[in-house]
Amino acid sequence: MTAGESAKRKRKALEAVEPPLEAAIDLGTLPRQLGYVLRRAQAAVIQSYAGAFAEAGPRPAQFAVLTILDRNPGLSPSQVAGVLAINRTNFVPLFDSLVQRGLATRRPVKSNRRAHALYLTAAGKALFDKAARRVNTHEQLFAAKLGDGDLERLLELLHRLTGALADNVPPA
Amino acid sequence: MTAGESAKRKRKALEAVEPPLEAAIDLGTLPRQLGYVLRRAQAAVIQSYAGAFAEAGPRPAQFAVLTILDRNPGLSPSQVAGVLAINRTNFVPLFDSLVQRGLATRRPVKSNRRAHALYLTAAGKALFDKAARRVNTHEQLFAAKLGDGDLERLLELLHRLTGALADNVPPA
Repeated sequence: MTAGESAKRKRKALEAVEPPLEAAIDLGTLPRQLGYVLRRAQAAVIQSYAGAFAEAGPRPAQFAVLTILDRNPGLSPSQVAGVLAINRTNFVPLFDSLVQRGLATRRPVKSNRRAHALYLTAAGKALFDKAARRVNTHEQLFAAKLGDGDLERLLELLHRLTGALADNVPPA
Repeated sequence: MTAGESAKRKRKALEAVEPPLEAAIDLGTLPRQLGYVLRRAQAAVIQSYAGAFAEAGPRPAQFAVLTILDRNPGLSPSQVAGVLAINRTNFVPLFDSLVQRGLATRRPVKSNRRAHALYLTAAGKALFDKAARRVNTHEQLFAAKLGDGDLERLLELLHRLTGALADNVPPA
């Protein structure tokens, strides 16, 4: 067997393990399925945000909670979870993570001993302002990637879709 | 205190616990942030698919794997995970769940004892065909909700966004 034949045989053996290239994999109807296409876009967007933030930056869900508390101090946990469609089981550890970082706080409500009102701390407000500037700059990257007006169009279609589907299902 | 005053006071106490209505909560810049808007749309779409499937129906990620194996029998686990951008740690239990339900199988590869090739079983093929018909019918609901041509436009914008962002980041 020549060196060339040996190399060819090795390549063949490798091909048997990993036959088609990814480009050649047939995705069937997945690229026409909205759920799949949304998942891929969301993963790409989250990865893109992550690249723009330092390690200490808030995660997207944390940032959403900071935004709501910045604009609406004193809401109850169920109001914040409800407006963001985060389920209560996930909201508790999410809010705890903000409390542990000293970014947000729960205060008792006078009229109801079992109730709490949620607030940003001064550190939370400072981090939120910094993160908000960075997020808003990052949105411009998406606008640039999509080109003239198409980010607007995409946001409008997504809002319309979410609204239309929400009419049919109970709120999360 | 009159009955009316008492009722008013009770209402006031309740309002102190749950002050603003959800409609009155200020979302700040979240409705302009692509990551947030995508998450909400994806949650609505997933809930909508879930309503259309019987309990026994495949979850979206399972359906995606069934689609790939239907079209590309014999791929390696890393090929299937790679093309769907599912990370390997999540892919193993996901594929195990299909094996446990008798829908898919791993077969050893002759040329490499440590390698496996993935296939649908006959039951997997039957379930996939049924689920694919239901999913495709369900896509028509999205088209109807968005109206004339706008589902096409939304899919096109999402594909373009994902592609543009993928150029900047290493594949998942």
